[in-house]
Amino acid sequence: MRQDTFARIEGAIRKLDYRPSQAARQLKTGRTPILGLLVPTAANPSFGQLAVAMENFAQERYGYRVLLCNTYRDKQLESRMLDDLIDFGVGAVVVVSSLSDERHIEAAIERGLAVVSFDLGVEPDAQIRNDHVLADNRLAGRLAAMHLIEHGHKRLAFLVPRGQTMSRRHKVEGFLAAAEEAGSGVSAEIIESDTLSKFGDTELCSLGFESAEKILQMKRRPTGVATVNDMTAIGLMAGIRRHGLSVPEDISVVGMDDLVMSAYVWPPLTSVSMPVTEMAQKMVDRAIQHINTPGLRPEQITFAPHLVSRQSVGAPPGARKPAQRNHAKQS
Amino acid sequence: MRQDTFARIEGAIRKLDYRPSQAARQLKTGRTPILGLLVPTAANPSFGQLAVAMENFAQERYGYRVLLCNTYRDKQLESRMLDDLIDFGVGAVVVVSSLSDERHIEAAIERGLAVVSFDLGVEPDAQIRNDHVLADNRLAGRLAAMHLIEHGHKRLAFLVPRGQTMSRRHKVEGFLAAAEEAGSGVSAEIIESDTLSKFGDTELCSLGFESAEKILQMKRRPTGVATVNDMTAIGLMAGIRRHGLSVPEDISVVGMDDLVMSAYVWPPLTSVSMPVTEMAQKMVDRAIQHINTPGLRPEQITFAPHLVSRQSVGAPPGARKPAQRNHAKQS
Repeated sequence: MRQDTFARIEGAIRKLDYRPSQAARQLKTGRTPILGLLVPTAANPSFGQLAVAMENFAQERYGYRVLLCNTYRDKQLESRMLDDLIDFGVGAVVVVSSLSDERHIEAAIERGLAVVSFDLGVEPDAQIRNDHVLADNRLAGRLAAMHLIEHGHKRLAFLVPRGQTMSRRHKVEGFLAAAEEAGSGVSAEIIESDTLSKFGDTELCSLGFESAEKILQMKRRPTGVATVNDMTAIGLMAGIRRHGLSVPEDISVVGMDDLVMSAYVWPPLTSVSMPVTEMAQKMVDRAIQHINTPGLRPEQITFAPHLVSRQSVGAPPGARKPAQRNHAKQS
Repeated sequence: MRQDTFARIEGAIRKLDYRPSQAARQLKTGRTPILGLLVPTAANPSFGQLAVAMENFAQERYGYRVLLCNTYRDKQLESRMLDDLIDFGVGAVVVVSSLSDERHIEAAIERGLAVVSFDLGVEPDAQIRNDHVLADNRLAGRLAAMHLIEHGHKRLAFLVPRGQTMSRRHKVEGFLAAAEEAGSGVSAEIIESDTLSKFGDTELCSLGFESAEKILQMKRRPTGVATVNDMTAIGLMAGIRRHGLSVPEDISVVGMDDLVMSAYVWPPLTSVSMPVTEMAQKMVDRAIQHINTPGLRPEQITFAPHLVSRQSVGAPPGARKPAQRNHAKQS
């Protein structure tokens, strides 16, 4: 090409503000620099924090954006979104689902989508079909129970929405195991709240709020309650207050997720913290590796949670006063 | 086509799980069924709620998905994201920016992107270049001041992060105007907190928390404080508590946004509520109309906020006790 022809083309490009069409580029490479992220709902700030952590890292490290989709744990919707993402040329997706039936995800994997499951373990006897990045939820449950036991609580309870998911089941198992190992009169109960129709933060808070009455009417009322997440714990504390009781004076409460806001509510919420930033980065790394290396062997990667102690846990009422408010005998 | 040929093709399509390539379809139509949504950060639940409201409606009404991008109010990043969205074939985008310099948005509009600005008004003497959907922020500020004045407060303050945006300026103006119109010894001050580097919820809460000290050390300490958003109000209430004072007994607090969680914090937060769902639906409608009707005349559409009264506002301390704790004279 002659020097002046080249200059003329260059000038034309600048004048026309030419940018290569992403659609054309994608048709050639078959790829879009987007990672999918399917969450139950972005209205829940714990998923919002996850989305931000993923996007920051995906953008800075790989130049990828994150397409955030709300599935409301609806299998049909989740399935349609996975199909759409494949059609958009998206090569990998992170799924926060906890739906126990995963056949729709397997179908997407068969169509070539790399799937990283968040906070969903593989059953011991099952074959690992895709990457799993999760917190050690048994340890999370265990940390919550141990913290209550260390403060002298003997009647523990774990508040969980009806409808088992693996991560909830593991939290419950760890909680019960720690209570059993403590021995010497420590008992633990599981309290199931109503099933949620949509997993927005509205329902998570109100679920905790409505459960307070149920807990306060129990014959052997627990003195220490853990919940599956902070939103439910914040709602529970509000419900306990509405019935004229105090946290932690009457009932201690432990949350899980360690939301930013949990440090500012009253009382500041003690919570089991998951290393969300590290998990987000690992998921992005794995997603990109799968795009670049088809046939990469799937892995399960587990991160350890830790407990952040604030002011929602204290000694049980009996430990401070000679007469207990609640006259139920201890076993 | 012969009947059996047709049947054979149909069978092959079913067998191959044929789906038309979105990239190929996009190259033909030049469009992707995605709306962009640029927010400062999805970690702030008020933007999460907006994203969910938009996506539900976009999906149900038009079959569009929403691509959520975090801009951290960084002009460079916002500008690059707009370019990327155009390259992806996205035809319309909703921008929650409040950046005062809008030249990068104008550049995107010139490249054919339809832009709906959220909560950012057009200056009276400026030409309207694109759609604006916003709350009446002057009315929001006015409602907060009037509510405090009705409860007997005479020393009001408005807490706002340093760095003016139009929506903040309008809130301040409405707040000051209502205080001035009330007359009879009502005064109002603006308290500027530090500038935020990134608009995550961490900083919004801690901004309120750190501002408590500044407010409590004021010579003429305000008895009623409004803040630009609920996160800051929740942080402020925690900060007031840390200094041994109570809300609303010592200081009344009004937030803005009416987050779901605000009903569950202690005390339940009185807040100015924006009709987020209606605004989200209007923005989606307008975005789709612009895609379908190039050259559509831009509009500014304003929605009215309303105040949701809870328990963070009460009478000022002097109104209940013969001796005021704070001995500053009233003007």
